[in-house]
Amino acid sequence: MTQRTATALRYQNGTLAILDQRALPSETLWVEVKDADHLVALIQSLAIRGAPLIGIAAVLFLAVAAKAGKDARTLKAISAQLRASRPTAVNLMNLLDRLNPLLDKDSATIEAAAVALFDEDVALCERISDVGLPLFKKGCRVLTHCNTGGLPTAGRGTALGVVTRAQEAGLAPFVWVDETRPLGQGSRLTAYELKEAGVAHKLQPDSAAASLFAAGKVDLVVVGADRIAANGDTANKVGTLMLAVLAKHFGVPFYIAAPWTTVDPACPGAAAIPIEDRPADELLSLGNKQLAPSGTATYNPGFDVTPATLISGWITDRGLITNPDAFSQ
Amino acid sequence: MTQRTATALRYQNGTLAILDQRALPSETLWVEVKDADHLVALIQSLAIRGAPLIGIAAVLFLAVAAKAGKDARTLKAISAQLRASRPTAVNLMNLLDRLNPLLDKDSATIEAAAVALFDEDVALCERISDVGLPLFKKGCRVLTHCNTGGLPTAGRGTALGVVTRAQEAGLAPFVWVDETRPLGQGSRLTAYELKEAGVAHKLQPDSAAASLFAAGKVDLVVVGADRIAANGDTANKVGTLMLAVLAKHFGVPFYIAAPWTTVDPACPGAAAIPIEDRPADELLSLGNKQLAPSGTATYNPGFDVTPATLISGWITDRGLITNPDAFSQ
Repeated sequence: MTQRTATALRYQNGTLAILDQRALPSETLWVEVKDADHLVALIQSLAIRGAPLIGIAAVLFLAVAAKAGKDARTLKAISAQLRASRPTAVNLMNLLDRLNPLLDKDSATIEAAAVALFDEDVALCERISDVGLPLFKKGCRVLTHCNTGGLPTAGRGTALGVVTRAQEAGLAPFVWVDETRPLGQGSRLTAYELKEAGVAHKLQPDSAAASLFAAGKVDLVVVGADRIAANGDTANKVGTLMLAVLAKHFGVPFYIAAPWTTVDPACPGAAAIPIEDRPADELLSLGNKQLAPSGTATYNPGFDVTPATLISGWITDRGLITNPDAFSQ
Repeated sequence: MTQRTATALRYQNGTLAILDQRALPSETLWVEVKDADHLVALIQSLAIRGAPLIGIAAVLFLAVAAKAGKDARTLKAISAQLRASRPTAVNLMNLLDRLNPLLDKDSATIEAAAVALFDEDVALCERISDVGLPLFKKGCRVLTHCNTGGLPTAGRGTALGVVTRAQEAGLAPFVWVDETRPLGQGSRLTAYELKEAGVAHKLQPDSAAASLFAAGKVDLVVVGADRIAANGDTANKVGTLMLAVLAKHFGVPFYIAAPWTTVDPACPGAAAIPIEDRPADELLSLGNKQLAPSGTATYNPGFDVTPATLISGWITDRGLITNPDAFSQ
C-alpha cells in the first residue's frame, strides 16, 4: 500500500486528505478531497495553502483520480483545471507539467510519479535547509512573514525549514513572526509550528516590523516565494515587499528560501506576474466581529512582488543564489 | 448653560460623555464619564482615543470635577493621574499644564478655561486644514494610517481634516486607508469617517501599502502624531515608520499633520520617547476568534518613532514646517 504523510496532507492508496489550515490553531480538521472542484475550492479558500504543498496535492489528486478509473482525457481536464486554481503558484504548474505526459499511462505509473514528486519535495526542503544553515549565527534573530514550514510543504518547509534546521543544529535562533494579515498565516500557523518545534519567537503586527529593524533587533529576514521571475523578481505573500524595503533601508540581509520549482524562466519580471485581488470580506469582518463599515471598497492583493535588487540572496536546492542571472540560464 | 459637542465627545454643564470608539462601526455607544479612574480606563482601553481628544477630555473632566465641588487639592491629584494615563500623548500633558494653575479658582473659571481649550482645538484643526490644503492637487491619492479626523479631535481632525477640507474645496481626493492592526482604527474609524464625509477611499491591509507605492498609486502620505520631539522625530501609531521608509524609498512625500501642542521641546529625539507595549491579547484573539496559539509571546508596541530625516514636512497650526529646527526654538 502506497502512503505518504506530511504535516498537512495524507495520501493513502487512492485517497487524499488535507488538514484544513483555516481552522488552525483552534481545531485540527482533516478533510478528504472529494473531486477536482472540491480541491480547487480548498486551494482558493486557503484551506490547503503554500505553493509547494498545492503542487503536491494537485499531482496526488491526479493519482487519486487515475486509481478511481478516470480516463486520460478526464485526467488532462482535471490537470488543466487545477493548473488555473492559483495563478501565482508556478510550482503547481511545474509539477503538473511534469506529470501531464504520464496521464495516459496506467494508474500505478501515475501514482508512482506523483509520490516521487512528494518525496522530491521532502528532499528539496532538506537541501534548502542545508544551504540556508550557514547564514544563521548562534542566537540570531530572524524576521519572517506568512508560513513556510511543514504545513505548506511535504517536508520541513522552506524559510521556516532553515529555522528548524538551525534549531536542531543548536544555534537557538529567535524568530519575529509577522501576523500576516488578513488571513493570519503568521499568527495562526507559523506561531503554531514554532511552538511545536520549540523555537523561541514573538508575534507582532505586520506594521510593527519597522520598529524592530530601527531598534537593531533583526539580524536577517527569511521568507518564502510563490514565483521567481527570470530576472529574480520574486512574488510572495503580500507584505514581503514592505520587509524588503525596510531591510534595505536598515541594512539587514533579506533572503528568499524556495525550491527551484518556484522559478519561472518564462516570466521576465515583476510586471508579468499576475496578482490575485482577494475578496473584500477578508478585511471587513473576522469571526463574529465587523471590522469596517459594510460595503467598504478594498485593495486586498494576495501577493506582492519584490524586485531582485532588494534581495540579498535566494536559498534554493541548487545552492545560495546571489546573482539572479542564474534564473534565466 | 455651557455645552460643547464633538464627533466623539459631549460636554454639557458639568457632565462629560464620550462615544466608545471600540464599538464603532457596529454600534454608537455613548458613555458618561463617572470619575477619574473611569476616564483613565476609557483612555487606556482606547474607548476614547486620539491625542488631541484625550487632552480635551481630561481638561473637561476637571471642569466636571470642579463643578461637582472637588477641592483644589483633589483636582490637582486628578490632573496628575490623568497626565500619566497615556505616556506618549504630549498634548494631554500640555493641556493639563495650561489648566493646572487655575485649579484653585472657582468652578466657573475652570470650566471656562477648559471650554476655551476645546474651542482652541476646533480652531487648530481648521488652521491645520488650511495649511495642508495647498499640498493637495485635484484627484490626488493620499495614503493614511490610523484615525485622525473628527473622532480623535474636538474639530475636523488633523491628517483627515486636511482630506475633508480638500474634499470641500472640490479637489476630490482619494484615500488609501491602512486598516491599522491590531485595533483597526483605519478600518473601523477612518473608513467610517470617510464614508460619512463622502470621500472616495479603499481599505487595505497595512502590509499592502508597499505594493501601492510600487505601483505609483500613492501621491502623498499624511498621518497624525502623538508627540514631536525637539529634533522633529515624531511618535505616531505603530506602522507610521513603515510608511515613512516606503515613502522615502519610492520618492513619495510624507507629511505629519498635528497641532503645535504635540511638540515636546523637552524631548530631544526618538530615543527619549516612551513607547507602550500593549497587551498580548490584542494579537491573540478578536471577537470570538482565536488568532494565535494561546500563550504566544508578542511584541505589540502602540507607537513607533519616525526620524525627522524621513519627514517631508509637518502641517501645523503655525504653518508648514520643513525645517525641524523650528521645534526647538
